[in-house]
Amino acid sequence: MNTLLIKNVLLSGRKTNILVKGNRFENLDAPSDTVVDNVLDGEGTAILPSFFNTHTHAAMSLLRGYADDMPLDKWLTEYIWPFENKMTALDIRNGSELAVREMIASGTTFFSDMYFDIQETIDIVQKYGIRAAIGITFVESHSKSEQKDKLDMLENWVDPTGGRIMLTVAPHAVYTVSSELFVKCADVARQHNLKIHVHLSETEKEVTDCKAQHGLTPVRYLDNLGVLGPNVIAAHVVHIDEEEAEILAERGVTVAHCPCSNMKLSSGHLNYALLEKAGCRVTIGTDGACSSNNLDMREAMKFAALLAKDRSGNPQLMSAEDAFRIATRNGAEAFGIDAGAIEKGKLADAVLVDMNNIKMQPCHNLISNWVYSADSSAISHVLCDGKIIL
Amino acid sequence: MNTLLIKNVLLSGRKTNILVKGNRFENLDAPSDTVVDNVLDGEGTAILPSFFNTHTHAAMSLLRGYADDMPLDKWLTEYIWPFENKMTALDIRNGSELAVREMIASGTTFFSDMYFDIQETIDIVQKYGIRAAIGITFVESHSKSEQKDKLDMLENWVDPTGGRIMLTVAPHAVYTVSSELFVKCADVARQHNLKIHVHLSETEKEVTDCKAQHGLTPVRYLDNLGVLGPNVIAAHVVHIDEEEAEILAERGVTVAHCPCSNMKLSSGHLNYALLEKAGCRVTIGTDGACSSNNLDMREAMKFAALLAKDRSGNPQLMSAEDAFRIATRNGAEAFGIDAGAIEKGKLADAVLVDMNNIKMQPCHNLISNWVYSADSSAISHVLCDGKIIL
Repeated sequence: MNTLLIKNVLLSGRKTNILVKGNRFENLDAPSDTVVDNVLDGEGTAILPSFFNTHTHAAMSLLRGYADDMPLDKWLTEYIWPFENKMTALDIRNGSELAVREMIASGTTFFSDMYFDIQETIDIVQKYGIRAAIGITFVESHSKSEQKDKLDMLENWVDPTGGRIMLTVAPHAVYTVSSELFVKCADVARQHNLKIHVHLSETEKEVTDCKAQHGLTPVRYLDNLGVLGPNVIAAHVVHIDEEEAEILAERGVTVAHCPCSNMKLSSGHLNYALLEKAGCRVTIGTDGACSSNNLDMREAMKFAALLAKDRSGNPQLMSAEDAFRIATRNGAEAFGIDAGAIEKGKLADAVLVDMNNIKMQPCHNLISNWVYSADSSAISHVLCDGKIIL
Repeated sequence: MNTLLIKNVLLSGRKTNILVKGNRFENLDAPSDTVVDNVLDGEGTAILPSFFNTHTHAAMSLLRGYADDMPLDKWLTEYIWPFENKMTALDIRNGSELAVREMIASGTTFFSDMYFDIQETIDIVQKYGIRAAIGITFVESHSKSEQKDKLDMLENWVDPTGGRIMLTVAPHAVYTVSSELFVKCADVARQHNLKIHVHLSETEKEVTDCKAQHGLTPVRYLDNLGVLGPNVIAAHVVHIDEEEAEILAERGVTVAHCPCSNMKLSSGHLNYALLEKAGCRVTIGTDGACSSNNLDMREAMKFAALLAKDRSGNPQLMSAEDAFRIATRNGAEAFGIDAGAIEKGKLADAVLVDMNNIKMQPCHNLISNWVYSADSSAISHVLCDGKIIL
């Protein structure tokens, strides 16, 4: 098994040597003369878990800056959808590559995606060495044969990387997927032990329409259909009441909070206090770069923390430590990936942060500097699955 | 006069050569063989106006990450003030240097500061070649002789840089300065044609206390004292009503909006729609790094735009173009500095942005990418007063 020694790196304020064996942390206090295949000089850097981005549309990085500052309806119908209709498989490939390169450069080693022509995105993930949960998107408007092809792909798929890529079942949203299709998606996910990735309660209109059509809010409607469970990752979850927060927590649903996208589109703002009180697992997603407009989890983490404080009027809500855990470990746990912390035995996904970067100085509190002050210029190396990918 | 030719740089989407003569843009379409003292290769970059940060406490960068995620009272009384009481002139110098280096690295060429031991900060500004408006802070608790020393300094001061540094009169806030001292400050400012830099309506408590003590809100109280005028830059201005927005606009007061600081301390959120409707000039400040926790105007600009949209429910409010103008030209205008735009005759303060940076691609819209996507890793050069300072 390949071995890597990260020398003289700061871990919890102490300088140490970290041995990575294969794709896992083997020894967090290794002798400096350990014989290894590769050595990485970590002098002047601190090691931290990398980011887990739980809601993306990677290929939409091609639409970064294409349409901003307009109402959701106009944005979608006049700009985004017409653009997407013209996208080829090669566009998806190029967009995914742009996204993956940006994610690595900003310290992210995992993303949960929802888009089409997924083989292109899978190829890019394989090539660049990061992790992904690639959603197979289901919408009502697809033909029966298209839906069958997708189900076949789920059944027969083998991860070409042997562990870095999983498929997820991605019924798009309550306004694009019928009850029958939602139930079918939930069945398939149960049968193959897969995660479900869905947009949920993103806008007021979604809630109003769902109540008009089904007599229930989106959360209650999906719960009634038996869709909600610990394998569900629900993106946005902006418009919910206290009881819905409790339903989500009881079912073990994970929320993918997308602060930049929600704020920019004026969709509303996630009520973190409510979800935290209910005991719901919150993670962070950037959403696609056409709404957010980057895939920078460090920035999204600061937005999440400051938005929580601003919305609640409570400056103690979502501390730097909380925001950091939400953006790293919580995301890994939601997808059952044994990473998100620098611990012996964990998968070696990590960021080396340059402590000499001007935004990291002085260092009264490393996590505070990382969450509230840093930017990607402070990242010196990124590790995923035991390999140096930046 | 020193001359500089910036070759092959993108300006408004067109590749050109820009001639800087002395400290001003002389020709935006200069021949590529113009004979000059210095040549800067701008290939692959775009030129944009640099940032004008209208509210800082530079030396407080030493307190970055020192105390976070706590109520304002505890934060001030148990952490910030005790720390500040121990700060020496050398600390102020080091903190100012850290701040100035961070500002330059993130594309800022001007800051309006309010702190003490200002000679230390002035020395650093002089050394690093940027611009600043250095506030002479007035608080009631200073002795009469201290106040007199400060007034003397204002009267006798000569800018050692011959144009990059101005002093401002900085009565701290309505809760730390008496009516008499406010009136004296306003008189001195009028007499010497100086700007006034003041904290205003930052918290609900400030408003409640001011009404209890003076029977008026802070804006109305200062207006009654005759303090408000076009020379006033008021930081925060979070808690105001419609009539107060109109008073501020009528008097020509500039607002220094500090979105990150306000959100992190849960002080409330500036009502941009109200100020815009009233016709009030809004600019952006980072506040000190102990609340914001960096001095990154690009990040503050994105926070300002997204906060405006989130607070108003209107995604069209504060477009990327608006946010960019607010963070650049508006700040320059507020301080009477003939910069903030890449135009013939303007002072040559600018940023060269690396168009190959992953966050700047693709480029459907340069300003949108700069406001919503970029970070400091995209900055290749910074110019201030005609000189390359990064």
